[in-house]
Amino acid sequence: MTLVPLPILLIEPIVREALLEDLGRAGDITTDAIAAPDCVARTVMAARQDGVVAGIDLAALAFQLIDPAIRFKSIMADGATVMPGAMIAAIEGPARGVLSAERVALNFVSRLSGIASATANLSAAVSHTKARIVCTRKTTPLLRAIEKYAVRAGGGADHRFGLDDAALIKDNHIAIAGGVAVAIRRVRAHVGHLVKIEVEVDTLAQLEEALGVGVDAVLLDNMSLDQLREAVAMIDGRAVGEASGRVTLETAPAIAETGVDLISVGWLTHSAPILDIGLDYDHR
Amino acid sequence: MTLVPLPILLIEPIVREALLEDLGRAGDITTDAIAAPDCVARTVMAARQDGVVAGIDLAALAFQLIDPAIRFKSIMADGATVMPGAMIAAIEGPARGVLSAERVALNFVSRLSGIASATANLSAAVSHTKARIVCTRKTTPLLRAIEKYAVRAGGGADHRFGLDDAALIKDNHIAIAGGVAVAIRRVRAHVGHLVKIEVEVDTLAQLEEALGVGVDAVLLDNMSLDQLREAVAMIDGRAVGEASGRVTLETAPAIAETGVDLISVGWLTHSAPILDIGLDYDHR
Amino acid sequence: MTLVPLPILLIEPIVREALLEDLGRAGDITTDAIAAPDCVARTVMAARQDGVVAGIDLAALAFQLIDPAIRFKSIMADGATVMPGAMIAAIEGPARGVLSAERVALNFVSRLSGIASATANLSAAVSHTKARIVCTRKTTPLLRAIEKYAVRAGGGADHRFGLDDAALIKDNHIAIAGGVAVAIRRVRAHVGHLVKIEVEVDTLAQLEEALGVGVDAVLLDNMSLDQLREAVAMIDGRAVGEASGRVTLETAPAIAETGVDLISVGWLTHSAPILDIGLDYDHR
Amino acid sequence: MTLVPLPILLIEPIVREALLEDLGRAGDITTDAIAAPDCVARTVMAARQDGVVAGIDLAALAFQLIDPAIRFKSIMADGATVMPGAMIAAIEGPARGVLSAERVALNFVSRLSGIASATANLSAAVSHTKARIVCTRKTTPLLRAIEKYAVRAGGGADHRFGLDDAALIKDNHIAIAGGVAVAIRRVRAHVGHLVKIEVEVDTLAQLEEALGVGVDAVLLDNMSLDQLREAVAMIDGRAVGEASGRVTLETAPAIAETGVDLISVGWLTHSAPILDIGLDYDHR
Amino acid sequence: MTLVPLPILLIEPIVREALLEDLGRAGDITTDAIAAPDCVARTVMAARQDGVVAGIDLAALAFQLIDPAIRFKSIMADGATVMPGAMIAAIEGPARGVLSAERVALNFVSRLSGIASATANLSAAVSHTKARIVCTRKTTPLLRAIEKYAVRAGGGADHRFGLDDAALIKDNHIAIAGGVAVAIRRVRAHVGHLVKIEVEVDTLAQLEEALGVGVDAVLLDNMSLDQLREAVAMIDGRAVGEASGRVTLETAPAIAETGVDLISVGWLTHSAPILDIGLDYDHR
Amino acid sequence: MTLVPLPILLIEPIVREALLEDLGRAGDITTDAIAAPDCVARTVMAARQDGVVAGIDLAALAFQLIDPAIRFKSIMADGATVMPGAMIAAIEGPARGVLSAERVALNFVSRLSGIASATANLSAAVSHTKARIVCTRKTTPLLRAIEKYAVRAGGGADHRFGLDDAALIKDNHIAIAGGVAVAIRRVRAHVGHLVKIEVEVDTLAQLEEALGVGVDAVLLDNMSLDQLREAVAMIDGRAVGEASGRVTLETAPAIAETGVDLISVGWLTHSAPILDIGLDYDHR
Repeated sequence: MTLVPLPILLIEPIVREALLEDLGRAGDITTDAIAAPDCVARTVMAARQDGVVAGIDLAALAFQLIDPAIRFKSIMADGATVMPGAMIAAIEGPARGVLSAERVALNFVSRLSGIASATANLSAAVSHTKARIVCTRKTTPLLRAIEKYAVRAGGGADHRFGLDDAALIKDNHIAIAGGVAVAIRRVRAHVGHLVKIEVEVDTLAQLEEALGVGVDAVLLDNMSLDQLREAVAMIDGRAVGEASGRVTLETAPAIAETGVDLISVGWLTHSAPILDIGLDYDHR
Repeated sequence: MTLVPLPILLIEPIVREALLEDLGRAGDITTDAIAAPDCVARTVMAARQDGVVAGIDLAALAFQLIDPAIRFKSIMADGATVMPGAMIAAIEGPARGVLSAERVALNFVSRLSGIASATANLSAAVSHTKARIVCTRKTTPLLRAIEKYAVRAGGGADHRFGLDDAALIKDNHIAIAGGVAVAIRRVRAHVGHLVKIEVEVDTLAQLEEALGVGVDAVLLDNMSLDQLREAVAMIDGRAVGEASGRVTLETAPAIAETGVDLISVGWLTHSAPILDIGLDYDHR
Repeated sequence: MTLVPLPILLIEPIVREALLEDLGRAGDITTDAIAAPDCVARTVMAARQDGVVAGIDLAALAFQLIDPAIRFKSIMADGATVMPGAMIAAIEGPARGVLSAERVALNFVSRLSGIASATANLSAAVSHTKARIVCTRKTTPLLRAIEKYAVRAGGGADHRFGLDDAALIKDNHIAIAGGVAVAIRRVRAHVGHLVKIEVEVDTLAQLEEALGVGVDAVLLDNMSLDQLREAVAMIDGRAVGEASGRVTLETAPAIAETGVDLISVGWLTHSAPILDIGLDYDHR
Repeated sequence: MTLVPLPILLIEPIVREALLEDLGRAGDITTDAIAAPDCVARTVMAARQDGVVAGIDLAALAFQLIDPAIRFKSIMADGATVMPGAMIAAIEGPARGVLSAERVALNFVSRLSGIASATANLSAAVSHTKARIVCTRKTTPLLRAIEKYAVRAGGGADHRFGLDDAALIKDNHIAIAGGVAVAIRRVRAHVGHLVKIEVEVDTLAQLEEALGVGVDAVLLDNMSLDQLREAVAMIDGRAVGEASGRVTLETAPAIAETGVDLISVGWLTHSAPILDIGLDYDHR
Repeated sequence: MTLVPLPILLIEPIVREALLEDLGRAGDITTDAIAAPDCVARTVMAARQDGVVAGIDLAALAFQLIDPAIRFKSIMADGATVMPGAMIAAIEGPARGVLSAERVALNFVSRLSGIASATANLSAAVSHTKARIVCTRKTTPLLRAIEKYAVRAGGGADHRFGLDDAALIKDNHIAIAGGVAVAIRRVRAHVGHLVKIEVEVDTLAQLEEALGVGVDAVLLDNMSLDQLREAVAMIDGRAVGEASGRVTLETAPAIAETGVDLISVGWLTHSAPILDIGLDYDHR
Repeated sequence: MTLVPLPILLIEPIVREALLEDLGRAGDITTDAIAAPDCVARTVMAARQDGVVAGIDLAALAFQLIDPAIRFKSIMADGATVMPGAMIAAIEGPARGVLSAERVALNFVSRLSGIASATANLSAAVSHTKARIVCTRKTTPLLRAIEKYAVRAGGGADHRFGLDDAALIKDNHIAIAGGVAVAIRRVRAHVGHLVKIEVEVDTLAQLEEALGVGVDAVLLDNMSLDQLREAVAMIDGRAVGEASGRVTLETAPAIAETGVDLISVGWLTHSAPILDIGLDYDHR
């Protein structure tokens, strides 16, 4: 999967809103007091940790929306691996704008790079298998599109984007429907021909029921490694097998080795720490 | 500091936007297929971890904006300490709405509770001192107001909310101005009488310079414990002393014992993991 | 497929915007001049043509957003078949609000009912076959969600909702990729496991190439009935077969009889005439 | 009446919203997978039917908002008459953007051209008379400004734009007021000196009453040709005479020949089919 | 002209935006600190000056949007004459909400009442004539609809609401067109049949030219009383005569006595001082 | 205090909204009819009164948002003193855009210059003292940021921007708390370390109580000159002393001479008349 930049129409409103959130009603009163209008700042965005970078376009937008006179030159591209000190971008322009946009730019790039890095680490841990890492809908409210992008930047694959682009039948749906098979049938009768259906199963009996009526993917939730292995054998290529539950850097390799196609991880988007990225100013 | 709920005018647009992000263009196609219009769901929001809860109002709004017929009954209030199994709220109403809003509601309450819990843990670690925990502007873009609220729910104190409500003179400001004293003077001449001024100092020499011209607060950045102790002695009550840098649950007590007034922690808002909160359905 | 109402969160902003478009800066100056504040209007929304009704919720919202004191009582539900004179809803309340909202309410319900009716007519024409009618992305800008809903109300099935929820490889994609198979492979490598892939083919050779690499659905564009029949035989259940091009009420039965699964029709949403629906006031 | 382009401030938000509606949360996943970043597309927007073109500015904006690097060169101007094959514009630029914006651009230009073409056809049918074609408030919700523009592009004249820019007293207003004369008097007393007043009359007796108190225009609703002729004679230049009801290409000439000034036609905006316009790619 | 309330759809977004502007990111920190959640406030909105009140609905909305539990009881209606001490409304509810919304509510009602009062004073000064007071487009940006409403509340009449609902040919238009008559003819050929045309004339020669080609209204700009009298005689009922320029409470009667129909006054909306209105709390 | 331009991100949405308010649904129908597309206008923005100019950036934006081809060249900067005839800016470009944006541009610059001029006049009246002029929260709804900026342009200082950036304890807060000291203590316990606290006192006894517990600023409301003098003596540099109530150009000098630091004036933003600024066209 090639990493494709998000359309500017999708990210510009988010960056604009984030800047307005920080500027408040009066703007950056500290910088306004200190930097003369003609004061120029030169700074380099640099990593302070190992990881994978993501969100450079959003950082660039933060500076350019504050002041179009700021030049933002990417040195790296999203998805690149960085080490401490690695230069990600060079920024030069009116100091007022550079300093005013700095925090918002870093908030985006460090958060998204954190997600990308966590994804990359997990992906590396399972790279000896065919398993791919995917995220869930446990994303930060209002930031789903860019967080899913960060997962892709880290080498993860896409899961569904919301409630409407694929069907995911969960335990409560099954309870309401009265069974796995009836749930799948109801959904299949309801959705269009371009909607895939995945069903969450907690037991091998449920899996058998699901495979019996046919389904595009099965979410094997919180199964033991033995169960996962047996599930993969039962599926036998008839559906995509996705493991979830208690996935960590330590457990991921063994889970992947069971033969599942996907491992879904909620904490990539809800709990991954940021990647430490900062600006190094050149005050000569 | 009493915890005061955020005005609904501030939180409603965020919850609405989060729901729309998840509903996409067609809504919850899975639930729509499975749950009949008259199917009723009863569920309890419960903690699955120790921590402090925050964001119950946002969760309530998520359900009520999806379907006003859903009854959301809080059992706990924001700021309450929870243990695994603790019931936070009871929700009952049309199953379609309950299932459709579930993820958004949990995304809010688990994220904010994660921040509140991390804050509470740090606060507990320094509770034998006068030091208070505060957060920074390293918040999630678009969620600053609610994340700062979560810090308060966890017992933390407020820092500035943006670039315009207080002046914080940082290292790059000082470099541009050419010194601590001149930077403070420029800001003082620029801002209104209701704006406080804080200055970041890296050395005791800078601190001395700051105290010489007078300032409301000093950010003692990345100082050793010895430096912090000396800084507190130098300040001698003339300014608020805020320590920052390398704060963890382990290092916080010693930092607090130096006598600083505040300890600021970026990772409360940029890297705290969520608190695991889920819904337990009653399918009888 | 049961018809499920669209979430109010999706339709309310559209109805609100439509009312504001009509109210302009000063509101309904004619009605304001003529109807006293306590003047009550009673009216019945009635069909003036045979067809299928859709959009009643939007009409109800139009009245309720203008004045919550207006009572809107549905007599029929979306998807119902109507004949001239059939009563769809009864509306009663302050005359100012009723008259001010009337045109917007009718603009929604007549347009959506026009789409539903056209869909129902086409569906009836192919009801002796397994073929289902689907629409395309040739929808009215800003109204896609409600127009796709109207197609469902008329008995049609869903196609993809936008550029991001399913992959549809068209002629120009194939030209850029350099062939059907390579195009499908590139897309498969790029998209997530819950994304279906459909490919448009103009010839049976292209179809063979598509089936060779495997694909979820094939769009058989502008093929003759003979070609369609052969295509269906070639597909042999391995993909969904969708016919498109030159579909009219007259041609649809024969197309459906070729054995295709779906018939997609752009004019359902871009050129269907409205269904004539009006309000009959009771001025006693 | 010269055709004046709509201000970009009015059309840009509509085009932007339409693109976002189509891009969803992840953008054009098909094109992203297939077209390399440096792949260039060259295409010509061409008519496939006889008609009058309108909406070229909106199509241009669709491409430019997706990617400012796309060059859109108009070959024709809105209001121009086209024949099948006529080239309307040439578009060249990064293939990703061109293919992603194509459908939205065509949705606008084909819909507006459909309205312009229908208006032009009707206008031609009455061109031997002084009658002008006008549209109504039966426009597509959210698109009124651009649909009224399309009517002008087709040679039609403006009617009122909403409820607030002119008074139009309809049958229900008359019923509430208790008569034509009292209704007109109430409105005249209420509105400002720059607001014109039109009254809908169903009978010649009502017309006489209207002319007695004076009014700027009369809407002669569903009258026979004889009634229209008599109405025109009664009006005798004292008001604008507008005929409405059952207007088709076939009936329009005779209606126009009665001497009315305007013929208003709802279906221009609510039921006109699109004009078939497509893109011809040059894949050399 | 009866005063008709503005639709809530028009005023609600303005009041909501004004509250958010005041609440900022953290709400009313003073009131939150002082008033307990169950503290109840009782207060009366009262005039402190003679004048005419307007904007009560907006004040009510300010309180209700902050907290629906607040009861706002109007004692007077917009357009009522008040004396110092006159009670306009009674407000009771949770003190937090009442105090937080107070300033926004008063900002609306005092500003709009200031406009209404100035209009009423001017209207009274010309009440022995047929002249009506009207305002211009010199309104506060973003508040035109409510300011025009305040003029109506003060007994003024409506002028056009914007650039699109009536044509007003000004001196620069005439200069560009090359003369009064050609300007009027160009506009008449361009606009729809429900658009009135007014022309600004600086001399009686221009007036004669305007009347020669016919026009709905003439704006007699900065004419002497003698000129105005002569202009009225020349017009002789063939157009509405509007005087403008140097209108004050002192000059208005004589201007009105020249026989003009309207006197337009820019300062009603751009420079009228507020009417002093406050809240009297009952702290028993 | 140097005058720093507001970030374009803050002012652009306001100017855009103001233009849309004026353009309505059809734009400037008068200018569209009269000015040919290639007609060029040259005009100079000039003062017609003595005063201080503010808002030039907003005027520039108005022209540029209407048509980017318009060149707006500032001759003066905000904060400059002008005399009748003083040229503020030169504007040249397509006449359609220039004439369409003219009123909105002038509405901004004349209103903000009116505020700046009133502030400058008051500031001049107290320039022999240390007192600075400040404004209040009695600003025009939706325009607070730009009105506060205008006060700064006129030489005034900032007061708080809203309810959340500083605490201002007023009479009703004191009544609810039960006293000045308890009110201050409650607020101090509630707010963050970067929030200043001001308290409104009506009597010297209250002032003494406030100074006893310590506070950043005191608002001396409606005190006599004698009281103010005594208050200043009592404060003795321990807090900022702000006088308010009955401030006019005439009373301000004596108030300032009492030694207060600040004089706050509501009418600067709620009742200052505009500064007369117009456009002089060059029609050669």
